[in-house]
Amino acid sequence: MRENYNSRLDALSADLAEMCTLAEDAMASATKALLTADLGLAETTISSKEQIDVLAAQWEQDAFSVLALQSPVALDLRIMVSGIHIVADLQRMGGLAIHIAELVRRRHPAHVLPDEVEAVFADMGRVAVEQADAAREVLLTRDADLAKQLRVKDEAMDDLHRSLFELTSSPEWPHGVPAAVDITLLGRFYERYSDHTVEVARRVTFLVTGELRPDDA
Amino acid sequence: MRENYNSRLDALSADLAEMCTLAEDAMASATKALLTADLGLAETTISSKEQIDVLAAQWEQDAFSVLALQSPVALDLRIMVSGIHIVADLQRMGGLAIHIAELVRRRHPAHVLPDEVEAVFADMGRVAVEQADAAREVLLTRDADLAKQLRVKDEAMDDLHRSLFELTSSPEWPHGVPAAVDITLLGRFYERYSDHTVEVARRVTFLVTGELRPDDA
Repeated sequence: MRENYNSRLDALSADLAEMCTLAEDAMASATKALLTADLGLAETTISSKEQIDVLAAQWEQDAFSVLALQSPVALDLRIMVSGIHIVADLQRMGGLAIHIAELVRRRHPAHVLPDEVEAVFADMGRVAVEQADAAREVLLTRDADLAKQLRVKDEAMDDLHRSLFELTSSPEWPHGVPAAVDITLLGRFYERYSDHTVEVARRVTFLVTGELRPDDA
Repeated sequence: MRENYNSRLDALSADLAEMCTLAEDAMASATKALLTADLGLAETTISSKEQIDVLAAQWEQDAFSVLALQSPVALDLRIMVSGIHIVADLQRMGGLAIHIAELVRRRHPAHVLPDEVEAVFADMGRVAVEQADAAREVLLTRDADLAKQLRVKDEAMDDLHRSLFELTSSPEWPHGVPAAVDITLLGRFYERYSDHTVEVARRVTFLVTGELRPDDA
């Protein structure tokens, strides 16, 4: 029974890492679709939503059953409670990547991005994918130092986000309001995705230390 | 011991309703600050963040201790697990209201809103506050019908959000890109706030029925 219990806990942790990979893949393909106005890739990305949602629902059900039947305490309970938060973050990360792909589909065959912001979004996509990759490592290793490093990348994302605002708010912005509106929403999606990777790391830190630092952790 | 346990569960439920009231108040005052460019009110709204965050952290700590010491099952366990999700939603609702107030502060003494979108934001604020109020009622009563009604209001919010897009995307939009960018972000904050009220209701429905319907619940 105990062995079965431990293997269920391990499986739940492994499932989180798998969901993180899906959210990472969704962001990678959404960004590629955005940069190349690739409708097929956008569609594939959008269809990955179901897989992420099914996994999340399954995870929640499994976690509930472990809580009900095994009454974990101490570290095991922290694993479960953190996991409940982390699943929500991972699911949201997937959802945000899919919002990007949906905008690509809505504007197709037009490109969403004017040339001069493509590089910024390529960077935002790269940082977001690196962050998701680091979050997955943190989930697998529970390495608190790695968790901290995610904050540094988050600052890189904030800088990129600010540079977008400067571009669209400049009096010389030549692409009009609709392009600026799309870019504003896209920027927000990348920024929020990034926030959620940091939140995953924060929850893993809680899991390890038992202390939940405020939002700046 | 058992009596103490039940009163702790009741207190945790009451705390959720209280946090919901704070998130509702934050939205009401943020919207008023937005419509009147009232810096003082924006500042007050922003300062309510701390209270919401402290309550959320306290709630999580209390919930953890109930899970660890009492090992609730069945309905009681659903109350706890739903609560963990709901606290996150309520905290985010507060955060989104505060984002609105922060934008008011950043643009002060200028008004963020051109005259012709004021009415839309007045409506969005009204709907958001009504939704938070309904979510609080759902938290207190666990009334599944009331939970369903929140979806209807959510459609009203979606309609308002769409009408904003139409205004800013029109070739006749006279206020330039920076105003459209602000309005796009604000619209997103209201829409997300609304989504979270629906999510709170969905979690209460799970609590009552034991079934977590997909996102459309």
